[in-house]
Amino acid sequence: MLPTILDLASLKAAYAAGLSPLDLVEEIIARRKASDDPAIFITMTPDDDLRAAACELLARVPEPNSLPLWGVPFAVKDNIDVAGLPTTAACPAFAYHPEEDATTVARLKAAGAIVIGKTNLDQFATGLNGTRSPYGAPRSVFDRNYVSGGSSSGSAVAVAAGLASFSLGTDTAGSGRVPAAFNNLVGIKPTPGLVPNVGVVPACRSVDVVTVFAATVGDGTTVRRIMEGYDARDPFSRRAAPANLPSSRPRIGVLDGVEREFYGNKDVEALYDAAIERAKSLGAEIVPFDYAPFRQAAELLYNGPWVAERLAAVKDFLETNAGDFDPTVRTIIEGAKAYDAVAAFEGRYRLEALRQKTKVEWEKVDFLMLPTSPTTYTVEEMRADPIVKNGHFGRYTNFANLLDCAAIAIPAGFDAKDHLPAGVMLVGPAFTDEALAPFADAMHRVLNAGMGKDRTAALPAASRVAPAAEDLVPIVVVGAHLTGMPLNHELTRPGGCKLKTCRTDGSYRLFALPGTVPPKPGLVRDPGFAGKGVEVEVWALPPAAFARFVQNIPAPLGVGKITLDDGSSISGFLCEVHAVADARDITEFGGWRGYVSAADPAS
Amino acid sequence: MLPTILDLASLKAAYAAGLSPLDLVEEIIARRKASDDPAIFITMTPDDDLRAAACELLARVPEPNSLPLWGVPFAVKDNIDVAGLPTTAACPAFAYHPEEDATTVARLKAAGAIVIGKTNLDQFATGLNGTRSPYGAPRSVFDRNYVSGGSSSGSAVAVAAGLASFSLGTDTAGSGRVPAAFNNLVGIKPTPGLVPNVGVVPACRSVDVVTVFAATVGDGTTVRRIMEGYDARDPFSRRAAPANLPSSRPRIGVLDGVEREFYGNKDVEALYDAAIERAKSLGAEIVPFDYAPFRQAAELLYNGPWVAERLAAVKDFLETNAGDFDPTVRTIIEGAKAYDAVAAFEGRYRLEALRQKTKVEWEKVDFLMLPTSPTTYTVEEMRADPIVKNGHFGRYTNFANLLDCAAIAIPAGFDAKDHLPAGVMLVGPAFTDEALAPFADAMHRVLNAGMGKDRTAALPAASRVAPAAEDLVPIVVVGAHLTGMPLNHELTRPGGCKLKTCRTDGSYRLFALPGTVPPKPGLVRDPGFAGKGVEVEVWALPPAAFARFVQNIPAPLGVGKITLDDGSSISGFLCEVHAVADARDITEFGGWRGYVSAADPAS
Repeated sequence: MLPTILDLASLKAAYAAGLSPLDLVEEIIARRKASDDPAIFITMTPDDDLRAAACELLARVPEPNSLPLWGVPFAVKDNIDVAGLPTTAACPAFAYHPEEDATTVARLKAAGAIVIGKTNLDQFATGLNGTRSPYGAPRSVFDRNYVSGGSSSGSAVAVAAGLASFSLGTDTAGSGRVPAAFNNLVGIKPTPGLVPNVGVVPACRSVDVVTVFAATVGDGTTVRRIMEGYDARDPFSRRAAPANLPSSRPRIGVLDGVEREFYGNKDVEALYDAAIERAKSLGAEIVPFDYAPFRQAAELLYNGPWVAERLAAVKDFLETNAGDFDPTVRTIIEGAKAYDAVAAFEGRYRLEALRQKTKVEWEKVDFLMLPTSPTTYTVEEMRADPIVKNGHFGRYTNFANLLDCAAIAIPAGFDAKDHLPAGVMLVGPAFTDEALAPFADAMHRVLNAGMGKDRTAALPAASRVAPAAEDLVPIVVVGAHLTGMPLNHELTRPGGCKLKTCRTDGSYRLFALPGTVPPKPGLVRDPGFAGKGVEVEVWALPPAAFARFVQNIPAPLGVGKITLDDGSSISGFLCEVHAVADARDITEFGGWRGYVSAADPAS
Repeated sequence: MLPTILDLASLKAAYAAGLSPLDLVEEIIARRKASDDPAIFITMTPDDDLRAAACELLARVPEPNSLPLWGVPFAVKDNIDVAGLPTTAACPAFAYHPEEDATTVARLKAAGAIVIGKTNLDQFATGLNGTRSPYGAPRSVFDRNYVSGGSSSGSAVAVAAGLASFSLGTDTAGSGRVPAAFNNLVGIKPTPGLVPNVGVVPACRSVDVVTVFAATVGDGTTVRRIMEGYDARDPFSRRAAPANLPSSRPRIGVLDGVEREFYGNKDVEALYDAAIERAKSLGAEIVPFDYAPFRQAAELLYNGPWVAERLAAVKDFLETNAGDFDPTVRTIIEGAKAYDAVAAFEGRYRLEALRQKTKVEWEKVDFLMLPTSPTTYTVEEMRADPIVKNGHFGRYTNFANLLDCAAIAIPAGFDAKDHLPAGVMLVGPAFTDEALAPFADAMHRVLNAGMGKDRTAALPAASRVAPAAEDLVPIVVVGAHLTGMPLNHELTRPGGCKLKTCRTDGSYRLFALPGTVPPKPGLVRDPGFAGKGVEVEVWALPPAAFARFVQNIPAPLGVGKITLDDGSSISGFLCEVHAVADARDITEFGGWRGYVSAADPAS
């Protein structure tokens, strides 16, 4: 009854068709037992606790799908608190028993989701590869010889193997994205501060971000929306100030020249180039940009004073328990002792100077598309050279949190032997989380790589991400601003999106205004008239763009309230009546588009 | 011919009346010579160089007052580069000869201003009192026994004594505000990053700000506007995102309970309370708030890792020239060696946690009004206890840059013996620089303390600061939104401001719309009509507020373009013509206000 990959749309459909959360948890219990990777979990939610959680949900909210995550199983990286389960950060001696859920976990539970266990990670989230844990190394679901990616290793594998619908990771350098690439998943990395870190073991507190692994961009976005929101207990929590991106023909920055580095992996390079072609097919303008200042910022994260944040997080424990650390992790963290406060501030100066250089690049593009990881390695290769090879994985991820970016990693397909997957990543400025999602989803669909280990799975239509109309201002357009008409760019360029095509109520007349350039109609309400309504489009604009838009409308046009055929009243174009005194009444054409087609039969 | 205080309006008037910049520089030369304070300048612009600068200005731009700072003399704190003069930072062994002007100085020179010299400061801008310099201690212009305040000591005294129209300071802890308070001046401290620091010797680079000392808020605002603007060479430079404040009845936060600390100075306390009463008289709502988290942030600046920024700025020089430091300054800077990188990050965590606490307070108020300095001391008192007494001066200033605030310090009057002045300070969130200025100017005018050492000077009407209309969207209102009418609050609450009252051109008719609540008129253009125009008001709204405003307008009203009697075309209220079919034509009343008065003769 349930598919391999438990994406939200499939699970919701199963619940609607009669599946009970009690059935679901039995399925999860069976799948966990049957799993061939013993390193995914550090602590599983006990079978009976899972059954109890399902019962509790049914008692609290009996109606199926009546909460956004009703009965949705999820896994939690073991550096995020879940009340009742220990938090280890993959260091047994560090373990503690939290009394409260992390803010994120609490919000997801309130939305109906069920925790199935705490997942393995590179110890203290220090790593991008998944081999730095005393609980073993989870493996890529596509080949047990290969690393899973990290540090959120178990979380990614759990979703890719069909043990959970989604999972939580954390991402400081790239830990919420690299494992997504190696397991054919979507990795949603919010803008720093958007999702609170209360109840998370810090890695680098100033740049840690809670992330989502999911089967689709839509699923990850749903989860991210539930987790986000200011929490004053997190010093770095921020109120979101949503940023817009163009709704069509985005300018996408891509790697160029010497900055194209795949460490010899031609397969990942070919998949990156194929993704660029696919982006073009979706209407993007491809813009090579200079990655150098981003790379230099990325290098600061491990080769700079930020490593002192890792020491700050565990310094008391390190003093008493140095022998309990993974040797590589300990080497990295102890490296922080070389930095004094002067070096810490000098690192910040360097970062801010690089930020200024990246601003020049951001002027050229709306967002970036980068390889998620430029290559991958076997567990054996990684263990032989654990710091350098780990560094390769972070080449394109490490800058994102330092430079205050949002990112979404998506599956980009499989190598020439149809063996291992690779990913690409869309990266936008702060608070473009929402704005990036529609294009990321469209890319995932055209790249056609399936979901997790089910590489032929079709992405459910129900999880499609439409451009968000929240916080946007609706406006009815009648003439030259309609889709395909000469002034439509005044809506698309500032991030407007089309909500629908519909008709006014029957009391409106349409006139062709003489002498306007480009030609424009005028819409006038005549309460005594009973026509068929005029065809219009409803668009939505960001508030500041709406203000500019209204400012730029020349007389005799203006913006008033237009009544649509469903009785709703929405801001839209009206015309001063004196201007239609000598104008032709074109109401009979049904709308401006009908009139223009009739006037020019070739169009 | 020239007044004691060389404020911009008076100087402009003198130029308009025939004064030449050549006369002006001779006057400056004479005043410098006659000055009774030998510690104001470290380097004066040589007399002949001043004369040459005046000639050069006349050759470049002969027309008087044709540049915003045409022939305006200003002094520059000696940690800001002026090409051709040494930069010492009040440490002779540190001196260097810059080849380029600081960005701020270059912009001011381009606007016509003339540098008269480099002023004394607490060495490396480390201090708030003005006694930490080998070039002597400038004194308050009101009593030579008292400190001038610092670190921008000479800059403040130069303006207060009438040697310059304005001067540049820098402010990390409060150095651009405390000396303003002690010398009866306005101190403009921009939001960090608004004014570039290129060419400034760093104190704490992440929180250093170039400031203005001026005779009036208007003067300081004029100078600040010229200096501001992104410069990529400064890692901390930012593009401004102007923030609005309500244009009427602002909520002003004031000290309360145990947080009221004046170190026994009843005079300053009384002046602070009097300023609060004056703010009420200007329509403010006074809101006691909790200063504790601001104070705790303030304490971090010297008693926390930020002092390492001071060490970062001079560490190479300190290694070779420790003996060349002022002993107190050296003690403070060497204290930084105790902090490692972990402590630096922990300090940041503490600051961010406090920032979250201050957000709760910001919800209650629009801006704060605080004493600039809670007390003052004689030079002798300061030298006897240089660190503790200096700390007193910074009690209400030290948080502002760490917490990303804009501030304007204004004169608050003189003590009971009419002897020493004190100041109050308006502090707003980031980028309220422009929005704070009108209220600060209004306060300066009602507090009636004169300008600098001329305590009876009347503030020139020409320097009054009107609410800024830049970046705001103008809108013509006709009826219920007029000043004093029932919906006017929809314009004032979101920060709108009134630009003018005027008339439409003669082609408009006004109708009283039947059945509207509150009663509203409808304005309709009738191109064949030749009336006298309709009285309207032009308001300006922030873009997002404009968008909300338009959204909330009910049919049959809308926003189109209205032609005013000066021929300009501005967005404003129009009415669908069908709605006036049965409405009374009230055009003869000249406007809605005329109609309402006639209908209700008591009003």
